[in-house]
Formats: sequence, structure tokens, C-alpha cells
Amino acid sequence: MPRSAPTPKPWPSDAWYIACTPDELADKPLGRTICGEPMVLYRGKDGKVAALEDFCPHRGAPLSLGFVRDGDLVCGYHGLAMACTGHAASMPGQRVKNFPPIRSYPAIERHGFIWVWPGEAERADEAKLHPLPWAEDAGWAFGGGLYHVACDYRLMIDNLMDLTHENYVHAGSIGQPEIDEAPVTTRVEGDEVVTTRVMSAVQAPPFWRMALRSAGLPDDGLVDRWQICRFSLPSHVMIKVGVALEGRGGPDADPSAKAAAVVVDFITPETEHSHWYFWGFARQFAVDDPAVTASIREGQRKIFSEDLAMLEQQQENLLRRPDRKLLKLNIDAGGVRSRMMIERAIAAEA
Amino acid sequence: MPRSAPTPKPWPSDAWYIACTPDELADKPLGRTICGEPMVLYRGKDGKVAALEDFCPHRGAPLSLGFVRDGDLVCGYHGLAMACTGHAASMPGQRVKNFPPIRSYPAIERHGFIWVWPGEAERADEAKLHPLPWAEDAGWAFGGGLYHVACDYRLMIDNLMDLTHENYVHAGSIGQPEIDEAPVTTRVEGDEVVTTRVMSAVQAPPFWRMALRSAGLPDDGLVDRWQICRFSLPSHVMIKVGVALEGRGGPDADPSAKAAAVVVDFITPETEHSHWYFWGFARQFAVDDPAVTASIREGQRKIFSEDLAMLEQQQENLLRRPDRKLLKLNIDAGGVRSRMMIERAIAAEA
Amino acid sequence: MPRSAPTPKPWPSDAWYIACTPDELADKPLGRTICGEPMVLYRGKDGKVAALEDFCPHRGAPLSLGFVRDGDLVCGYHGLAMACTGHAASMPGQRVKNFPPIRSYPAIERHGFIWVWPGEAERADEAKLHPLPWAEDAGWAFGGGLYHVACDYRLMIDNLMDLTHENYVHAGSIGQPEIDEAPVTTRVEGDEVVTTRVMSAVQAPPFWRMALRSAGLPDDGLVDRWQICRFSLPSHVMIKVGVALEGRGGPDADPSAKAAAVVVDFITPETEHSHWYFWGFARQFAVDDPAVTASIREGQRKIFSEDLAMLEQQQENLLRRPDRKLLKLNIDAGGVRSRMMIERAIAAEA
Repeated sequence: MPRSAPTPKPWPSDAWYIACTPDELADKPLGRTICGEPMVLYRGKDGKVAALEDFCPHRGAPLSLGFVRDGDLVCGYHGLAMACTGHAASMPGQRVKNFPPIRSYPAIERHGFIWVWPGEAERADEAKLHPLPWAEDAGWAFGGGLYHVACDYRLMIDNLMDLTHENYVHAGSIGQPEIDEAPVTTRVEGDEVVTTRVMSAVQAPPFWRMALRSAGLPDDGLVDRWQICRFSLPSHVMIKVGVALEGRGGPDADPSAKAAAVVVDFITPETEHSHWYFWGFARQFAVDDPAVTASIREGQRKIFSEDLAMLEQQQENLLRRPDRKLLKLNIDAGGVRSRMMIERAIAAEA
Repeated sequence: MPRSAPTPKPWPSDAWYIACTPDELADKPLGRTICGEPMVLYRGKDGKVAALEDFCPHRGAPLSLGFVRDGDLVCGYHGLAMACTGHAASMPGQRVKNFPPIRSYPAIERHGFIWVWPGEAERADEAKLHPLPWAEDAGWAFGGGLYHVACDYRLMIDNLMDLTHENYVHAGSIGQPEIDEAPVTTRVEGDEVVTTRVMSAVQAPPFWRMALRSAGLPDDGLVDRWQICRFSLPSHVMIKVGVALEGRGGPDADPSAKAAAVVVDFITPETEHSHWYFWGFARQFAVDDPAVTASIREGQRKIFSEDLAMLEQQQENLLRRPDRKLLKLNIDAGGVRSRMMIERAIAAEA
Repeated sequence: MPRSAPTPKPWPSDAWYIACTPDELADKPLGRTICGEPMVLYRGKDGKVAALEDFCPHRGAPLSLGFVRDGDLVCGYHGLAMACTGHAASMPGQRVKNFPPIRSYPAIERHGFIWVWPGEAERADEAKLHPLPWAEDAGWAFGGGLYHVACDYRLMIDNLMDLTHENYVHAGSIGQPEIDEAPVTTRVEGDEVVTTRVMSAVQAPPFWRMALRSAGLPDDGLVDRWQICRFSLPSHVMIKVGVALEGRGGPDADPSAKAAAVVVDFITPETEHSHWYFWGFARQFAVDDPAVTASIREGQRKIFSEDLAMLEQQQENLLRRPDRKLLKLNIDAGGVRSRMMIERAIAAEA
């Protein structure tokens, strides 16, 4: 094949992405591709997380099949031990000083997640970690999960920045006709894209009736319902959602009159046509009740699985028709503006 | 890759193909690729069948994941409703007048099947539907099924236009040594290719002994057996088969002296290397006995599954050796002439 | 695509490779790709093994779906019978004299295996069969099995010519720390590459303790342990392994003082990235005890399955990074020199 300039990657590289949860590193190294980079994640010295290329410089075996010994990652094939810097540390009967190093990725554990920086290591800056206020605040409860999704991560962003789809994909749980009727507004606020939809004086759908009950509120009256989707680079979507008793101020109502939460969506590209989807639900009601956490997690797991089927088949359809231009309607503005922000970030890196 | 002229499709497009059975449209739309065209089939206004491109012009989701409302096909992602013409009909909060239309395919329900015309819509002509006399005649009974087959549809035509293979692929059911011994003749009759084989004074094989019994005839005497394969464009093969008491005229024997039937084969290309195979058996004996229908359908299902294994592995072998030329023997004349007729039809369209 | 010179195959063709075991030909023909050649193996006249291209010259069906009749291989589609020479022998109602022949491969049954010669038939020479002394000597017992492995056959050779990996991949069975500590020497002896490692005065690991017991020797004292890997063309690795009571001469100790065996590895390329791995264990202890044979076979099956996981993932990693150069350490010398011998053999054929 003729050589051509490499296609730029369709995601920013100089950013923190969630690679896995602490649970996933409980007993052994984890191999996972993040932003096109096959990585091995593990706990090194003092349990500190580390991320290396998943490629032993000796014979190319995946280091993720190995084990940790004295803080070094030992290849499970012939025992080359790698330091978390990516340099060879030792090997039985060998001098390793001149072994070629492999790539080491900045990694950090924070807010209950393991984050990696797939781009230039020297630009990695902990201050750029996405803040998760609820992760360290007893006034919130959180539950979540992980899906592997076989579609471009940007289709997931589109999905989340326009919740009109709730009415179709999730008709049985969180959809309701008023979503279609309530106008949606999209604006850029600094580094964020914000899509807002408020439905006034509506009946709460099943999921939110459950939430009202959990919050100790009546579930059969009219409510004001809101969805405020907030995109930030590289690919995070935090969605303020909730219902308040009618006329009490909607999202700004007193906590005693509402069931309020944030749908948490961390979207980590794997390849051009697949991603890791770390989803969750941080709530400000019934925060001390683990049964509510479990019930919501299970409900969200089911609801989000409905998105998966749609998104993966949308991806297949788009790959089959690469020449087709899609529409950009008013309801799509959130996704469209988020993609523009991504494009600018990629261009700025180049 | 360098641009090159598109390869012409290896099937005629201006023709009616069976896309599905009415059962398959009972409760929701059906996504199915016909002649390389991903289609969604559904029942629109008044239950009339319709076929559209399976691609929502909004965001590219498969319309087959949606539902029908007031005769329109509503996308299951964001609710764009499409009319059966391929034009957008409505969408919540949107003006759809200027939305780009998608392709609509002529579709019709007839003879117990749903037919589509993947070619130029203006050339679609109901008069060109393949006639199925038995479908509307109480003197016949019909049962059938559908297989997805991972091979070029023309390999299936070859298979059906030369029944010599019965003796090898179906040795345990409908094969018998006399098939190999009886000469086969092939001729072109107008728009049809006809392959004829008659075996005189033979023992009936197991399947036909069952048929004789069902027809109230003795199953242990000598019979005359016939196979008259008839190919017609685009890819239909109707095979008159049967056995008559010896010396009573073979296929022309009085109905009281024979068990006669038509093996029905509608072969619908899916991709270049796969097709939908609508098979069936229309018989003139024991027509009022549904148990016979069920028994024959089950027998045919098993017998045709033997062909599938052979055909799919033949296809793999041919793809592995694209340079190899195959033999064209006397027994292959039916397939060879059918393929010539197909080639001419494709050329006439170009 | 532009035409380019064909890439030479990455294995010698003019050589005997094991294609299958006699068990695999017990009741019907076997289709198997050997060195990139899809073959059908079967027993023809008088039970003599034969190997043909697995491609019927009539319509391209795989001959391996057929059956043997009077020593000829009959195609299961339309009954063309092929002689073991690759010439058509007969077909119902056809003269076959002018049918194009297909390729016939030299095949032979010897030492309990079926061997084929995928290269030039006229160069096939039975004298070049790999000798297997134990196969015909009552002083030995043999048990073995077959794995299909999704990696380049040369990665398996590397694996076997450096047993350092035992300490990592097989830590729980045959690994022991002294393997890493004992120096390995590699030398070329005529047409063979020999890698030798001897560990003196060590504790026997679990597998060898079992062997010592089976040989009627104490399993708790110190032993001398050896691994002498011997590569020969095209891709065979015979490994002398064993333990002797300490100070009794190691591999040269009197039979009454040791448990000695040969790990048998016949590696037959299938495609560039897969191979058939015929493994076994020929031992000189407890030769009359079939329970020991069964137990060792099961142990070896498990141990070698550990290699499979590593090798297949190593292959995937290498394909993902074709630009990476691997290290060639002292422990890799056996594999490196074996590959050089293979390269020379391929060059000599070209």
C-alpha cells in the first residue's frame, strides 16, 4: 500500500480518561485499549496505579498476562520485570540496562476511578481532572457500571446531549410525551456545552415516581421535570436530572421538594468504532439507602442497554453508507456543538 | 484505494423478489437486505406492505428498530415519522418538509408472500409477478420455509437445476441410483430453462413411498419418476416432481395414478455471497391433510439443510481459489443456461 | 490492487509434516490445511493413506465432504470419483478422461502418524522422514495429543527452544527457580540446533516428583535435572527431559537412577498465523503402565494449554505492532538459530 499521512485520531489525546474502576484492578493487571493505545493497568509500589504499553519489549507478549512483584510488572512469559517508568528493571540472568523502554502513561486514582492520560506525558496535569463533587460529599450517593459499546464514542455523546430519544428508546421507563413538546435550548458556557429542557406540570414517568417515593415525596401529583446536559472535554457528559413538586422552582427548588440527581457519563474511546462507557447516577435523595442505590443501578443498567442496541446498529448503518450526510436539527445542537469543541481540541494538539 | 468503476451487481434489479412472508411482518417492521439493498419492510396504511431504505435520514439509525403509527414508520431513536413514499411525514417540534427523502421500493403482497422490486421503481409492473397457480387453487396444498444461505444465489440455482446431487447429498431420502443412470435433457423454452429427467420402472425412494401412501396408492410397486426443473428470471426454480404407477404416463398420468407436486424455490440474493432461500412444496395429493403438510415440510427442511452445508462449503472453496475454472458437464447445462439468461438480463439493464 | 511478486511462504515446502493421526481417518475423509494447502486426507486402496487438493474439479465442492468407494474418493455433491493420483476415475454418465487433474500430495503412514509432503512431489523421499526410535521400541511408552494454535508456527518453536518460560507460564507444575539460574548453551550440531540447560542438585518440581515415583525412585531428595532441546527441519522440536538422582550423571545416568523422557513437538504450519501442534511425551519409565500414560497426557494437555493462551495473545500483539523489533537475548538463541535454519531452507527451495 502507498504510504500516506496518518489519519489524526478522532479524539483529544492530552486529557484524562477513565480507564477502569478500582474493582477491576483488585487482583491482577488489566489489559485495556484506551484511545487506540493498548495499555496494561496495575497497582505498583504502595498500591499506586500505573499504566504501561501492553507489550513486553523482549518478545512482544502482553504484559497484562503477567503479575506484580515488588512493585514491578513481571512479564508472564520469560520474567522480564518492568518498572512503572516503562524501563526494564530486571530479568533473571540478564543485564537489562540497555533494553529499550516501553511507553508509560500518566495514571491516577481519584474520585473512585482510575484515570489515564494517553497523550504527551509532560502535559499531564492533575488539575485538569474532571471534578466530581459528589464523590467526596456525604450528601450524595453514587452507583454505576461499565458497558463496552461497539460504536464511535461521539455517537454516545450525541445520544446523551439530546434526550429526546428517551421518548422512543426508553418509552417504558423514563420517556413521556412532554419531552417532545418541551423546547430544548443549547448554549456554550465557557468550556462546556449545555442543553436544557424543562417540562412544567407533568406527570412523572415510572422511574421518577419511584424516585419521589424514595425521597419521601408524593408520586401522584404534577411535577416540574428537568434535564440539563453538560458536555465537557474530552468526552464527559454530566446530566442534571430531577423532578420537583409543581411550581416549587424546578431544579432550584428546596431539596425537601425535589428528587434531584446527576446522570454521570464518562465516555472513553477504545478504537474509532468502539468505546468504554462508564455510567452512573449520583443522587441527593435517599442517600443512606443502599437498596435504592442497587435498584437505581439495575434500572439504569437496563435503560442504558436499550441505548446500546440502537447505537451499535446506528454505527453499522453509518459504516455501510459513509457517503450519507446526516441532518442537524435543533435537537441535535448539543451533539453538534460538542463535536465542534472536540474538533478544536484535536486541531489544537496537532 | 484508487477509484474504479463500480462492479455491476450480479443479479437483475428490475424484477420482483420475495422479501419475506406475511408471518414475518406480523407485529413489527423487519430489516432485511435484498439484492444488496438494506430495506425495512412493514405494514403501513390499511395493512398495505411497504419497503423503505433502512436508514433514518435524521441520524442514520435503522428504521427497522422503529414502529408503525397511523401508517407511518416512526424511527425508534428520535421519532421522525416516514411515509411509505420515503418522504418525512412528521417529527415532534420539527418542520420536515425539506428533509431529504429516502428510497422507497415497490412492494406487494401476493400468493402468500411479500415481494419487492429493488430496481427502478417506475419499471415495477405487477404483471411481472411470478404466477403461482396453486396458491389460489383448492386442488393444491402448500407448505414451506426460509433459509439464510451463505453462498452466491447462483450456486443454489446450479444446485436445483441439476438434481443429480440428490443421489449424493440426499442419499438417505430422495436419492436413488437410477438418477445417475437416467439421461437429463436441457432446453430453453421462451424465457425459461427446462431440465428434464425421467426414470422409468424404478423403486420409489423413502420420501416418495410416503407420498404414494398419502395419495392412497401402493408404495411397493414400480413407478415412473420425474424431475422437471424450470428456471425463470430473476432466480426462481419450480420443479415438477412426482411418481406415477409404472406405465401410466409418468408426469401426464391421471391424478388417480400418481403423486405429483412442485418443489418451489424462490432465491433472493442478499449480498454477493449470501441469499434468502424461500423453499416449499406444493402438492396435488392429500391436499386436505395438514399432518401431511407438516410432515413434508419437516422432511424438506431436513433435506434442504443437507444442501446448505454443501453449498456454503463450496462457496468457501471457490472464494479460496478464484482462479479455478469449473467444469461444465452435460448435467450442468441447466445451471449454465440459467446463468446465461441472468447475464443477459443484467446486461440489458446496464 | 497492483500485481506484485507473491510473498514466499514462511516455511519449507519440501519436507514431511504430520498432517493428522490415524484416529482422525478412522471413518471418513478429513479436510485440513497444511502449509497453506487445503488438503483432503483419506484411506484409499488397501487402507493406504492419500492426500489430494480438497477441491473437486467439477464444481469446486470440498472433496472432504465425500466418501471412499473402492479406493477412490467420491465427491459428495455429484459423484465424481477421484483416484489418489489426482486424476478423475469415473462419474455416472460421464467420460472423465479429459477432466483436469487436481494436485496429489505424497502421503505416508509411519511411527503412528500420517505425514504429507506439501512441496514438489518428485522430491519426496521417505528416507527424510523424521526418525522416532521410541515408536518402535518396547523400552518406551508414548502418549500425545493435538492442538490447533492461532499463531505463527515459529512462535511455537521459539517457545520450545527456550524453556525459561516454564518458570513463568508453568509455575505451578514444571517451573522452578533454578531454571532461571542455570545457564543455557546453544550450539548447532549438523542439521540441528541444540539448547542445553542442566540444573544440578535441585528439588524436583511436582511433575517430576510424580515421574520419580512412577519410576520407583524416591521423590524427596535432590536431583540433577536437564532440558536438551533439539530443533530439526522443517519444524520439529524433540526435548530430552528428565531428572536423575543427584550426582549419578544427569542425562547419562544409569536408567535405574533416573526418570528420562522426550517431549515430542511436531509443529505443522496451517496458515501464516496458525498451526497444528502435535505434542506428546515418550518416556523410559513405567512404560507398561497405561495409567501413567493417561495421567501424563492429561498433565501435558493442561500445561500446554497454558502456552496456547500466551502464544495466541503474543501473536495478536505482534500483528498490532508490526514495526516493533524484538530482543534477541542469550535465552533466545535457540529460537533465533532455528529460524535462521528455516530461512536458509526456504531460500534453498526458491
